Amino acid sequence: MRRVAIIGVGCTSVGEIWDKSLKDLAVEASLKALDDAGIENVDRVYIGNALSPILQYQTNLASIIIDSLGFNNSSSILVEAADASGGLAFHEAFKAVRSGLIDYALVVGVEKMSDSKPSEVASALMSFEDQDYVAFTGVTQAGLHALLLRIYMEKFNVKHEDIALFAVNAHKNASKNPYAQFKNIIGVEDVLKSPLIADPLRLLEYVGISDGAAAVVLCPLEEAEKFRSNFVEILASATAVDKLFLTERDDILTFNSTRIAAEKAFKEAKVSPKDIDVVEVHDSSTIAGIISLEDLG
Amino acid sequence: MRRVAIIGVGCTSVGEIWDKSLKDLAVEASLKALDDAGIENVDRVYIGNALSPILQYQTNLASIIIDSLGFNNSSSILVEAADASGGLAFHEAFKAVRSGLIDYALVVGVEKMSDSKPSEVASALMSFEDQDYVAFTGVTQAGLHALLLRIYMEKFNVKHEDIALFAVNAHKNASKNPYAQFKNIIGVEDVLKSPLIADPLRLLEYVGISDGAAAVVLCPLEEAEKFRSNFVEILASATAVDKLFLTERDDILTFNSTRIAAEKAFKEAKVSPKDIDVVEVHDSSTIAGIISLEDLG
Repeated sequence: MRRVAIIGVGCTSVGEIWDKSLKDLAVEASLKALDDAGIENVDRVYIGNALSPILQYQTNLASIIIDSLGFNNSSSILVEAADASGGLAFHEAFKAVRSGLIDYALVVGVEKMSDSKPSEVASALMSFEDQDYVAFTGVTQAGLHALLLRIYMEKFNVKHEDIALFAVNAHKNASKNPYAQFKNIIGVEDVLKSPLIADPLRLLEYVGISDGAAAVVLCPLEEAEKFRSNFVEILASATAVDKLFLTERDDILTFNSTRIAAEKAFKEAKVSPKDIDVVEVHDSSTIAGIISLEDLG
Repeated sequence: MRRVAIIGVGCTSVGEIWDKSLKDLAVEASLKALDDAGIENVDRVYIGNALSPILQYQTNLASIIIDSLGFNNSSSILVEAADASGGLAFHEAFKAVRSGLIDYALVVGVEKMSDSKPSEVASALMSFEDQDYVAFTGVTQAGLHALLLRIYMEKFNVKHEDIALFAVNAHKNASKNPYAQFKNIIGVEDVLKSPLIADPLRLLEYVGISDGAAAVVLCPLEEAEKFRSNFVEILASATAVDKLFLTERDDILTFNSTRIAAEKAFKEAKVSPKDIDVVEVHDSSTIAGIISLEDLG
């Protein structure tokens, strides 16, 4: 298996971007990444998107985006895996380059949510859960996270103030990121006084409705030096699945998929949690971020 | 690169299957294929589906189906590429086994359309076209095929009777297939007297609204003999893309993607069109089937 490098990155601002379509956002991030890499075409484009069939009534994004990019000798694929769509698209591209199937890959993750009403977005997000067993009850994603938060605080006797620190820290990090949607510095009090969205979960503990796209260009490590000196090597990428229904999991406060994927990735990369300087976790809520950090070791 | 074999196949009946959900259909075909192969688990499940986010309001099918199958050590991925979703899922699985990334793959294609009104299905199918440039005009897929049919008949001075033979032959083949939806034998007159659905395209020239699923199990050729003596080797699988908009294509009556993919596949398999005994083409309409056959050589 070959070693793989990232030779280009690009992203749009994240926020309410009224003057750009889903396609515009994907193309903007892609062109930035290609430009950053100094490359004009790739062998394959991997697109991560979950909501466009419902929110834009648009399927077939792989063809549409590759057409908009003007690539006529590439192939493209759309990967949909709910919240993990972008991550899985990246994983697929990494494995394809690693195995020698292709040399150059562009990965682009894109969503456009702010053209829809908040109730439509909340409903669309519930399409991630099984319609026959979970979604039909009327529970929202925020409701499921609220359930986790309540159980977590009770089981470990943790105060909401301590949980809220996660959001405070996230905003602090965002304040230094020119692409971030919410750059305002907040305190624990702000979190705990923000409106309840699903008791006990508060507004500032939960993700916003956003438009945006991000893209990276991958190639074999031995080719990377042709493009730039400061490329990044990907040491490992791993995925895992758990039972989808929270109620069927062995421990509702552990994300088995995170734990198993992390173990596989650490093993493949030959590093351990203590070697890591920067972690980015899927923090659609404070509690999801906290559980993810715990499960990563 | 390794050689790859199909060691199991399974499919449901195709038709209006009111008593089974999308998930039931996927699971039924999958279990039949696994049973046929004599295997209980695979490394990865590839799911091809295009319409479930719109018609079932269900995304995240990769997690939902793998959960229903009770596979807890596998991973799964959903591949969406409009009409080509099942084919692309198969292609991805083939490449993954070929390259050594995985050993055992289950591929399942599934759609459930008959729970929705015909107008909803027609509308959902238009999500395959660009909403900004094509779908917003109100044209349907049948309308696009009717356009191709009209241009084809005019350019090549072909009578509608000759085109209708394609549907007659398809029904003849279907009559021998226990899983087919429309097994009735028809004649040219039946086709030409069936209702106009988009002038000049007639009802019996166009696909029905169907529920169904099909699945195959793939493994490295050297492992296939452990499971059965009559396995099938996959000699090649190739994909290609063309400009999505019909009006931007070099020749509106040629599917460049079919032509290029066929060339690649014939080259990889080291066979030529004259070596082929059985062809299955994407014949969502008579004219699409005819153009596909021409472009395959």
